[in-house]
Amino acid sequence: MGVSELRDPEFRRDPVTGRWVIVAPERSLRPMTLEGAEPRHRPDGEGRPCPFCPGHEYDTPHEVFAVREPGSAPDGPGWRLRVVPNKYPAVKPQTDLSPTRSLSGEGQLRPGGLSPSSFPGKGDGGFSPSPFEQLPGIGRHEVVIESPDHVSNPAFLPDDQIRDVFLAYRERLVALAADPDLQFAAVFKNVGAEAGASLGHCHSQIVATPLVPDIVRQELNGAGEYHTRTGRCVFCDIVRHELADGRRVVAETPHFLAVTAFAGRFAYEIWVLPKAHGSRYEAAAGPVVAELAGLMKRVVRGLDAVLDGPAYNWFLHTAPLRSAELGHYHWHFEVMPRTSRPAGFEWGTGCYVNAVAPETAAAQLRAACPG
Amino acid sequence: MGVSELRDPEFRRDPVTGRWVIVAPERSLRPMTLEGAEPRHRPDGEGRPCPFCPGHEYDTPHEVFAVREPGSAPDGPGWRLRVVPNKYPAVKPQTDLSPTRSLSGEGQLRPGGLSPSSFPGKGDGGFSPSPFEQLPGIGRHEVVIESPDHVSNPAFLPDDQIRDVFLAYRERLVALAADPDLQFAAVFKNVGAEAGASLGHCHSQIVATPLVPDIVRQELNGAGEYHTRTGRCVFCDIVRHELADGRRVVAETPHFLAVTAFAGRFAYEIWVLPKAHGSRYEAAAGPVVAELAGLMKRVVRGLDAVLDGPAYNWFLHTAPLRSAELGHYHWHFEVMPRTSRPAGFEWGTGCYVNAVAPETAAAQLRAACPG
Repeated sequence: MGVSELRDPEFRRDPVTGRWVIVAPERSLRPMTLEGAEPRHRPDGEGRPCPFCPGHEYDTPHEVFAVREPGSAPDGPGWRLRVVPNKYPAVKPQTDLSPTRSLSGEGQLRPGGLSPSSFPGKGDGGFSPSPFEQLPGIGRHEVVIESPDHVSNPAFLPDDQIRDVFLAYRERLVALAADPDLQFAAVFKNVGAEAGASLGHCHSQIVATPLVPDIVRQELNGAGEYHTRTGRCVFCDIVRHELADGRRVVAETPHFLAVTAFAGRFAYEIWVLPKAHGSRYEAAAGPVVAELAGLMKRVVRGLDAVLDGPAYNWFLHTAPLRSAELGHYHWHFEVMPRTSRPAGFEWGTGCYVNAVAPETAAAQLRAACPG
Repeated sequence: MGVSELRDPEFRRDPVTGRWVIVAPERSLRPMTLEGAEPRHRPDGEGRPCPFCPGHEYDTPHEVFAVREPGSAPDGPGWRLRVVPNKYPAVKPQTDLSPTRSLSGEGQLRPGGLSPSSFPGKGDGGFSPSPFEQLPGIGRHEVVIESPDHVSNPAFLPDDQIRDVFLAYRERLVALAADPDLQFAAVFKNVGAEAGASLGHCHSQIVATPLVPDIVRQELNGAGEYHTRTGRCVFCDIVRHELADGRRVVAETPHFLAVTAFAGRFAYEIWVLPKAHGSRYEAAAGPVVAELAGLMKRVVRGLDAVLDGPAYNWFLHTAPLRSAELGHYHWHFEVMPRTSRPAGFEWGTGCYVNAVAPETAAAQLRAACPG
């Protein structure tokens, strides 16, 4: 039987668990200069120009945001930070999708909502509707190029540069909220090949989708149930308890608390929480964002010191785009070093084995990132 | 503040999502002769004796099951397959736990049920009960040593040997069901360091826990909802549709179907499903288990050929221990090659990006594992 090649990205729903995945064949085309699995930072492969360095602006799609010298032209030199669409996107704006989609064509997205289509299996003999659902892979996939310098470790970025990164996240969340097709923006950073980075030049990514993804939905639901049961925000309770208890505290600033996660999936997993309640990162004031950036730098310096330059990710969990301020949700960052390799137990059950008690990890990190 | 070192394993529940993890400090002591991240099979590190080879039976805890020459003594040579408790367990029998548990001591497990305790944070001033819950890390963690020969690739096991592996899974599920503390047994296999294997000698593992883990619970719930809505088993519908459609079929035998997962988390992810309904692997007849073993070998040979010896996991999803036969659930194996590294997007959202369309992957695998 013939296989019609899928080219455009597509959301597909697991018919049993309901878990959504993205099938994105173009992702396989991206350059992987960090290929290899050293669980440490690595420079780019030899001989390949870095597409994120100044002078190579032609190698990325047109910038959608930048911090630039006054008078410098978009997509030219003179920038301190650039945000560009990902050249090898996991999701695409609707206008970039083929008019006829090879595998389905039926999946339709209406502003603000989803209308999944059944997968049109051929010859199913009319027994029953197909159990399969998919949607066009609509969305935006952006790259935040964090510095003109070819630095691979964000802990080495100057303070004003890392502040601009966290301010850029806020700018993009505000801008992406203007697109009614998008429901959520995932802001994240991969450091090191083992953590999924494919290029060594410091960057973050933003993937905005018409779906609120599973883990964020689980957080919203779990926090909603906690709020219904207790009348309180579970994250506010975590902040209060961790400050009183102290054993998992890694670092603290006037507005933020960094703790090892009580039930982290990886050893040395850290959560950075605002002490005051707020569900929307976009609503954080500039000086507060700058304070957060400084604390994140301290935290990743601590991880570098304790784990000898590990690969890690950080990601933002914030309310869906265009949410009202929510009493039960509380934005935060999670920092997840790749301290172990999930195996069959983890992939098969969703239950992670963490070999370092969070209290032990916090004691080491406290010593390594003094205030 | 002093840190009391956690020694015994412990289940901890994420207070926001409800996700359980296992904190198991002893796991960090295990030997990692496969350390390094080549995404391929690797021999054991030089100079270290393999604890799974004959003559090293003293290096494992006492066997709980074996296929042996008649008259040979337990824990001595003469075996073709051994099942032993893991020397570095993620969970432990209640009798092996310290009488006083260092961090809590309150978590109690009653036969057949859970009674989580609050985390006894000190000095919380009585504001509100702690948001943290944990349980003693009770359970069994076993290793199935699949062959006396130091073979690292299960595709190279002789047919009768791989049949014995799948029969051993059945034996252990039946035996573990006799312990009323245990609710679920996770049967899985890690091949290659990138897939979490720490030793190169062919083995599987079984982790039995007092909890039904998240992904299995999601499958049970999702399949239950589908059954309520349609009156049918979702897995039976998948089998029927995939056979009629054909695009994702990898291989087929009289009783089984291997397909690439419609919404796999990794490229080339394969599900192996019995064609006939059945929720309990333990209820499969011997010849049917032998047929499954032969198909699994064909499938991993196909993966080896197409992906050049990838790291992968396989795992069994079956009904909880002591379940009645369930109309809505259907046991199956999932085979998950490590074709990409999950990054911040996947860890932060639970949404996986798969860069190879399952239809493309199936066409390649069909060609590589002819019947």
